[in-house]
Amino acid sequence: MKLKKRVAVCVLMSAVLVAVVVVLDVETRLSADPDQSPALASVRYAFHQRHLQRTGNASRELASSQLSAGAEDPNHQTSTPFPEDGSAHHHPSRPPDQPPDPYLDLHRLVASLGRKVERPHRIHWNPTIGELLGRDLRENSTLWDSFHLSISQDELYGAQDPTVNRLLKYMTTLPISHVSQTEGGTQIKLTIEFVDGGRALFKPMRYPREQETLKNQFYFTDFERHNAEIAAFHLDRLLGFRRAVPTVGRRVNVSRELFPLADHHLRSTFFFSPEHNHCFHGKCSYYCDTAHAICGDPDMLEGSFAIFLPDDTEVPRTRWRHPWRRSYSRRRRAQWETDSGYCELVKVIYPYSEGRRLLDLLDMAVLDFLMGNMDRHHYETFKMLGNNSAPVHLDHGRGFGKAHHDELSILAPLYQCCLLRHSTLATLLRYHKGPERLSDALRASLSTDPLSPVLWGPHLHAVDRRLAMVLAEVRKCVAKTNDPSKVIVHDSH
Amino acid sequence: MKLKKRVAVCVLMSAVLVAVVVVLDVETRLSADPDQSPALASVRYAFHQRHLQRTGNASRELASSQLSAGAEDPNHQTSTPFPEDGSAHHHPSRPPDQPPDPYLDLHRLVASLGRKVERPHRIHWNPTIGELLGRDLRENSTLWDSFHLSISQDELYGAQDPTVNRLLKYMTTLPISHVSQTEGGTQIKLTIEFVDGGRALFKPMRYPREQETLKNQFYFTDFERHNAEIAAFHLDRLLGFRRAVPTVGRRVNVSRELFPLADHHLRSTFFFSPEHNHCFHGKCSYYCDTAHAICGDPDMLEGSFAIFLPDDTEVPRTRWRHPWRRSYSRRRRAQWETDSGYCELVKVIYPYSEGRRLLDLLDMAVLDFLMGNMDRHHYETFKMLGNNSAPVHLDHGRGFGKAHHDELSILAPLYQCCLLRHSTLATLLRYHKGPERLSDALRASLSTDPLSPVLWGPHLHAVDRRLAMVLAEVRKCVAKTNDPSKVIVHDSH
Repeated sequence: MKLKKRVAVCVLMSAVLVAVVVVLDVETRLSADPDQSPALASVRYAFHQRHLQRTGNASRELASSQLSAGAEDPNHQTSTPFPEDGSAHHHPSRPPDQPPDPYLDLHRLVASLGRKVERPHRIHWNPTIGELLGRDLRENSTLWDSFHLSISQDELYGAQDPTVNRLLKYMTTLPISHVSQTEGGTQIKLTIEFVDGGRALFKPMRYPREQETLKNQFYFTDFERHNAEIAAFHLDRLLGFRRAVPTVGRRVNVSRELFPLADHHLRSTFFFSPEHNHCFHGKCSYYCDTAHAICGDPDMLEGSFAIFLPDDTEVPRTRWRHPWRRSYSRRRRAQWETDSGYCELVKVIYPYSEGRRLLDLLDMAVLDFLMGNMDRHHYETFKMLGNNSAPVHLDHGRGFGKAHHDELSILAPLYQCCLLRHSTLATLLRYHKGPERLSDALRASLSTDPLSPVLWGPHLHAVDRRLAMVLAEVRKCVAKTNDPSKVIVHDSH
Repeated sequence: MKLKKRVAVCVLMSAVLVAVVVVLDVETRLSADPDQSPALASVRYAFHQRHLQRTGNASRELASSQLSAGAEDPNHQTSTPFPEDGSAHHHPSRPPDQPPDPYLDLHRLVASLGRKVERPHRIHWNPTIGELLGRDLRENSTLWDSFHLSISQDELYGAQDPTVNRLLKYMTTLPISHVSQTEGGTQIKLTIEFVDGGRALFKPMRYPREQETLKNQFYFTDFERHNAEIAAFHLDRLLGFRRAVPTVGRRVNVSRELFPLADHHLRSTFFFSPEHNHCFHGKCSYYCDTAHAICGDPDMLEGSFAIFLPDDTEVPRTRWRHPWRRSYSRRRRAQWETDSGYCELVKVIYPYSEGRRLLDLLDMAVLDFLMGNMDRHHYETFKMLGNNSAPVHLDHGRGFGKAHHDELSILAPLYQCCLLRHSTLATLLRYHKGPERLSDALRASLSTDPLSPVLWGPHLHAVDRRLAMVLAEVRKCVAKTNDPSKVIVHDSH
């Protein structure tokens, strides 16, 4: 009887615990690989999130009371609930434009910290998907297979591997065999199938190059830009990350290459505009209608073609919620926006507590800040490459929206964690010093794209300006510490 | 037994007939005042509509086959289903810009036709709503009452009556007491209540003055323009129609004059944009969301204020479907677009078969063509003023969208019916001759509005250009007839 009671109580408590875990997990939408991420860490993270969001409600209430108060005192500008820098605790000063700071202190630091670890203490194993699948690259492998099988734990493609460039060039003329609308997301994307079986994700042009994010639009209501997708791939490669999906621009003929090859559902949404341009709008829950159609001019339409990653059924990926994700709400703010100690919470949570992951997020923050991308809500890793593999940089359509505004809050992971990869800082310093500045390198790299010029001039200018701002943040971090090797770090492998 | 059979057959046939009438009436959505419009005419009209639309299906099928064919032959421009002039049967030549044709032939014609009817053969009775309601205007009547009670069978306000100007001026500073979203329509409008009980319909600014209809937008997907509402009222008055709802521009403070006075539903949609502008989006089925919000700068918002007509419960109105209504579809075309003999069908149908109504539609066509308004789907009359009263010109938010395109199909009633009021033609000729051209008069009239300049320059220029095109159409009509008095006609009263 006593044993029975005990068992019953145990079962009941377990049930309650499981229910709590499930609820927390769903609510925080913390999607992590259950094989890799211990349940305990998940619970702890979820608890932190819930708990701190709850106690952080004061700020939310403040925001809504300010909204009401705004009506009575509309000129009280500082009371608006969205301070431009996105942080109540961090007020960085921007470096003056003239004369440019050479950041010699950081150069010296990078050089001295670089010497210390000249000899890696153990050999780093960097397996490829091909090796893990037991599939070798052969001479007659397609470029698609070659790209997929060469994806490694450290990077999507090798620095010296000519495959990606070949594949991108190949895609610009490869005949299309089938077109369908890609599921998911709020904006229309097409899955393009080529005659040789390869596939690409097509994002159509919606804006001319010089059209900036419309006034009063939030980062989450802005249209995506096809040219931002292309430019992000080049920028990521120039920074030495090689984690962004290879993407190339191409002009397609709506009447010849999309309409006749579109599947039934998509095809029914094609029409001619009053200006006789061939248009389509697809089917989705938001803005897939006549008023938001995508139109050729009259037939030709620019778009970005991103190579499909290996099929998710064969090489599954894990989708991770970005810890510095924004609220995607007009009124709510994310915890990191109000809590300057947020990084301390993240640091102790797996997988950010060990390995390369946190450093990868910091690289991602630098990449996003340079292009002004506030839309980094998730990222992915390949399951078979483990949790110490490089994340894939996906979805950059909301980058390069504002050329004259630098959204410093994108650097929150950097100024809250005070951490950056030694190699990343070295690369940034190299571009800052010149003679080839980052904008020069980006312009040269983008000039190879069929849609060149890919970026409007002021966006190139912005990249250099923002690079200096990243360096300024690193300098502040170094100034705060006695041990710069805690700020500028090497991967532990 | 025989009699019983006969009665049964009779009853059955009547039932079938009634059913057919109901179905046809519903399907064609011919909303006419049942008290005034004989059922027979309604049936005949509905029959014409159904019948001719059915036989006219060839063109619709042609359009959709062309849409498919477009994929195979995308460069075959002439096969697009939307010819710019909107008519397969009518190919007007535009008058050359230099030198301007003085249209002396029409001047002579108007003068000669005017002389013939110098003495009206009977006295015209023009009752006002006040007279019909038995309510006199008193010295202490409000401006609102004064405007409402003075609406007459012939016009919304008298040519010499100072009430409208006073009321418009009064509205620009009158404190607001309550704000709510107006039901109906696809775009957000607000009902503004003033402290003295008066009411106005508010349409907010969505576009800067010089923003033309976006490329690839249809007339039915274009945003409405507040300045078009204001300009339409002035243009209508200058043409001597006095049938457009008096409208004035005003800047409101979103934080002080809208947000705190908004009803509960509307108020919940207010927010601050990333640029700290105070915005709202209302609640409706289309585009009432964050991405389509209306924003102050940071608080101040321009809008048009149209005086409310008398309350519909007290002075009910009839809503009429416009016979030359467009299809509001990307693919379908209206019957009048493919049938050049369409006016012959309309002419024999009550209320177009007698009285002033058809002439009023022709005036409306001229007004709409001058401002490029393709969105005239319905019009209204006051029931108590009878069917021989002036229609009210409502909803001009889609006028003044394209300054460099003249949509000649708006003149279809004119070139299909070959009919125009003598007084309207005389007014057009006067403005065409100058010295005060229509654009001069419009500019001068609009300069009194608080939002002056109300129109972008090219729109003013377009008004003069289009006026000459109206005259060219009239001349063609005169050339086709032996009796010009059948083209340029006087009201029969």
